Amino acid sequence: MKSKLSFSRYGKSAVRVVKLIKHKTYHEFREVNVEVLLTGDYTDAHKKGDNRKVLPTDTVKNTIFILAKEHLTGTIEDFGLEVAKYFFKKNKQVEGVEVSLVENLWKRIPVTKGKRKVADPFTYQNAGDEKKTCYIQYSKKEKSIASGISGLHILKTTKSGFSDFYVDDYTTLKNADDRIFCTIMEAEWKYKSLKVDFAAERENIRQSLLETFAAHDSLSVQHTLFAMGDAALNASKKIDDIDISMPNKHNLLVNLSPFELENNNEIFVATDDPYGVIEGTVSRK
Amino acid sequence: MKSKLSFSRYGKSAVRVVKLIKHKTYHEFREVNVEVLLTGDYTDAHKKGDNRKVLPTDTVKNTIFILAKEHLTGTIEDFGLEVAKYFFKKNKQVEGVEVSLVENLWKRIPVTKGKRKVADPFTYQNAGDEKKTCYIQYSKKEKSIASGISGLHILKTTKSGFSDFYVDDYTTLKNADDRIFCTIMEAEWKYKSLKVDFAAERENIRQSLLETFAAHDSLSVQHTLFAMGDAALNASKKIDDIDISMPNKHNLLVNLSPFELENNNEIFVATDDPYGVIEGTVSRK
Amino acid sequence: MKSKLSFSRYGKSAVRVVKLIKHKTYHEFREVNVEVLLTGDYTDAHKKGDNRKVLPTDTVKNTIFILAKEHLTGTIEDFGLEVAKYFFKKNKQVEGVEVSLVENLWKRIPVTKGKRKVADPFTYQNAGDEKKTCYIQYSKKEKSIASGISGLHILKTTKSGFSDFYVDDYTTLKNADDRIFCTIMEAEWKYKSLKVDFAAERENIRQSLLETFAAHDSLSVQHTLFAMGDAALNASKKIDDIDISMPNKHNLLVNLSPFELENNNEIFVATDDPYGVIEGTVSRK
Amino acid sequence: MKSKLSFSRYGKSAVRVVKLIKHKTYHEFREVNVEVLLTGDYTDAHKKGDNRKVLPTDTVKNTIFILAKEHLTGTIEDFGLEVAKYFFKKNKQVEGVEVSLVENLWKRIPVTKGKRKVADPFTYQNAGDEKKTCYIQYSKKEKSIASGISGLHILKTTKSGFSDFYVDDYTTLKNADDRIFCTIMEAEWKYKSLKVDFAAERENIRQSLLETFAAHDSLSVQHTLFAMGDAALNASKKIDDIDISMPNKHNLLVNLSPFELENNNEIFVATDDPYGVIEGTVSRK
Repeated sequence: MKSKLSFSRYGKSAVRVVKLIKHKTYHEFREVNVEVLLTGDYTDAHKKGDNRKVLPTDTVKNTIFILAKEHLTGTIEDFGLEVAKYFFKKNKQVEGVEVSLVENLWKRIPVTKGKRKVADPFTYQNAGDEKKTCYIQYSKKEKSIASGISGLHILKTTKSGFSDFYVDDYTTLKNADDRIFCTIMEAEWKYKSLKVDFAAERENIRQSLLETFAAHDSLSVQHTLFAMGDAALNASKKIDDIDISMPNKHNLLVNLSPFELENNNEIFVATDDPYGVIEGTVSRK
Repeated sequence: MKSKLSFSRYGKSAVRVVKLIKHKTYHEFREVNVEVLLTGDYTDAHKKGDNRKVLPTDTVKNTIFILAKEHLTGTIEDFGLEVAKYFFKKNKQVEGVEVSLVENLWKRIPVTKGKRKVADPFTYQNAGDEKKTCYIQYSKKEKSIASGISGLHILKTTKSGFSDFYVDDYTTLKNADDRIFCTIMEAEWKYKSLKVDFAAERENIRQSLLETFAAHDSLSVQHTLFAMGDAALNASKKIDDIDISMPNKHNLLVNLSPFELENNNEIFVATDDPYGVIEGTVSRK
Repeated sequence: MKSKLSFSRYGKSAVRVVKLIKHKTYHEFREVNVEVLLTGDYTDAHKKGDNRKVLPTDTVKNTIFILAKEHLTGTIEDFGLEVAKYFFKKNKQVEGVEVSLVENLWKRIPVTKGKRKVADPFTYQNAGDEKKTCYIQYSKKEKSIASGISGLHILKTTKSGFSDFYVDDYTTLKNADDRIFCTIMEAEWKYKSLKVDFAAERENIRQSLLETFAAHDSLSVQHTLFAMGDAALNASKKIDDIDISMPNKHNLLVNLSPFELENNNEIFVATDDPYGVIEGTVSRK
Repeated sequence: MKSKLSFSRYGKSAVRVVKLIKHKTYHEFREVNVEVLLTGDYTDAHKKGDNRKVLPTDTVKNTIFILAKEHLTGTIEDFGLEVAKYFFKKNKQVEGVEVSLVENLWKRIPVTKGKRKVADPFTYQNAGDEKKTCYIQYSKKEKSIASGISGLHILKTTKSGFSDFYVDDYTTLKNADDRIFCTIMEAEWKYKSLKVDFAAERENIRQSLLETFAAHDSLSVQHTLFAMGDAALNASKKIDDIDISMPNKHNLLVNLSPFELENNNEIFVATDDPYGVIEGTVSRK
């Protein structure tokens, strides 16, 4: 063969780990979707079908479950680091490990106890589409960890406009000084160190993003995205950059004028496509 | 043509109505997916392509938005009844109207105000996969309204087993006295009257279902389904029957014995398929 | 408890059976998604948690795989009947069995052999979203089999209009004498007997539906739906009725007039929602 | 604000263009999902909410439809290049343009004409999940075009094994000398020039990938991936590299031994997760 292998990577994806942590007064239910990808010297595997250095992806899966038993006790970041280190150290043919984790969130169900509602210690409801994410790179060259949020489906009903934009021959959009701003935010931030109180930093960053989204007098999605990133950097000294994606999920004003009715920002149609894409990275100066 | 039309129905589906209700101190954000189906004398439309009695589905869509402006102020049940009555009364060629509504749920985002967290009056996060549903039939023969819940993704970590079942030659399942019970419940109940405090009854029924799910010593999904239905009937005098579907979303115990590790109900793998189906209707005696 | 069980049903869904049938000159790859639901005397199971009559859904799954080994050799209809009979006869606590089957379709990949392209005997590509479906009821009272098609995503670019419809105050739609007609058809027909050459009848019915869809001068979706149903009844003497659903998947003409461009049925935007619903049952007179 | 904007990008996604090209003897139906992303000097937009340089994403959408009218006549590559050039040249505030295109494939429906089946000139069926893709970068620094395939859901029933792999303490997988090899392939190749007969090169590359997949005696997914990449490079002189992703969509052998039945590669269960990930880039030496 005249070709060469210039990149390769393999592993197991969609390993859906469930862990039940039995605390004295309640059970903690955790559900984490794990992917582990390995890089290394796999040229002979590709060129000759020589599998002697190839750890089966089935073993990768087994190992994730086994490591979860001991190490999935706190944040997905702490667990992910254990997973990354394990594969890096145990397998000399492995040069780099990438671990991606996505945690589904569950909340306790409130039940009546006497005259109050209290969270049942053993019963959960899925908390929605928002996920905690984590991405780890672990090789000789780079050891890094990034955390994130995905599926944060949020909206504000006021303090949002888009006006005085660039107009060319194909522009038909009108200025809007009051519109619904709806997005499914994704954010990711890389920590400056591997030793961080991941739970605390995540909570600080998430809350700063949400509070800024709520408070901001938005002149555009870009404008609010930057303010949110700036707030996140203020909220955490452990990061220097944050990537934010805020697709513009349009709720379009329905034209009621054919029926001689006013539509004073009252009736909208929700749409999935097409949608605006707005992405930015905000960095510490 | 030698054939006849023995059934027909048409209308518009997936009309995604968003309504912003501007209260004095906050904005209420509502998102309801509406379907309206019409039945009537449409034989000539089918056989001859004579459209003179066919109200366009585009008009059905327009009408839903127009009616939402005035009537989507409270529950989807009250709104749906207005929609059903409108199409039934205004169109003499229409013999029956079916209205299906699915409401997406949103919750206010907590933001810091002084030393406390309060719900921001204008900012929302999607509240997850649980939906409020409603199905209305409105014809000369039948005028009825059913409400429901879909997407209620819940689980309990204990007080659930399945043992002493029927065993045949192909049975390999072992008795389980402590397992995770995870389901995505759907329920629907028909009201005995069209005049009901829909919000109050819904809340009573929903809470009784959840509390029973949490409290029940479950010997099987069927066992808990019945107890939940019984509780719902006790919680609301306005219904005589409730349909409940509780698919068994299996979290399977991972076999760690090849690695000489115990798995004392700690590590599971979440699966989507295959899944158990358990459905039942519980009725007042 | 004051309630009674007025309906119950249970079983296993999404059993994804793959069967490799090794013919002399090629391998036949089959993929069928099977659901089996059982009804019977399950009152004690629900009320008391008495599982002694409850065959586990895990056993239902095992049984489907075991029966596939011997019986999944021809059509899903013939296989489904064997499955239904098995559960009905072997389990005296079972009063009724419902079997639903959905077959994914695969086609052989054409490869070069000498100067021609021939279908490789062992290599397949998924054939798309069209599925073969089958639904069987098997109880003392009713033994019936229905076949169907789902996911038939088809369109015609001409010979389709919608004009001279009913116009009310909320109608803004204009007459269209030439539009794209796009649908994702579902059809189901019940056979008059359990002994049918299912493959031949299915092929006749499917081809008659498609040819009529192509040839018809459509004055509305309803108009074409009826003609297709009529053709299917002519194509098969084994059925007396066919249910057809033809949602109107709108390709909307893009308004280019603001840019002083004509749009002579050239540029459209594909949309998913809202969509028209058109359903009908065509029956032999 | 103490932060700076270190990256930004925006545009419109999911613009679902449908084009009807009316040839003399038939209508060509095209459906292309387009995304256009812009980079440039948007610091003031983010920091100050100054939108004067921001072309609305709504205008991006309009422009895509307008350009489709004139330019969507051949391949998505040729169309995409026109779109990229337009935005790059017309907007001096734009420094870079990325265009991503995904084409849904449709096939003509065969209908009876006399004694033969011929493709109807106006009637189409969706051709499945395989898509044609294209990704264009157009800036001062880089002008490049890559084409690809996504959703190529293929399998081979034999000539595939995986044996003699690396075994550690957590490995339970057994050697397999004959297994089903099922994948949903994605591939992407960057052309060395912008002036290419895109249709011809695509066809050559695609066919070489498929024929090699069919013919290869596979010792692992990696092994076949490399052979396929090598074949693609042989098939097209216009490319030097190809990225291939071949997730291992496992069809697991069902264990029938508890029922004293053999399973000689006959009965499998199709699974979605977890799945193996295998990725590689094959390059010309």
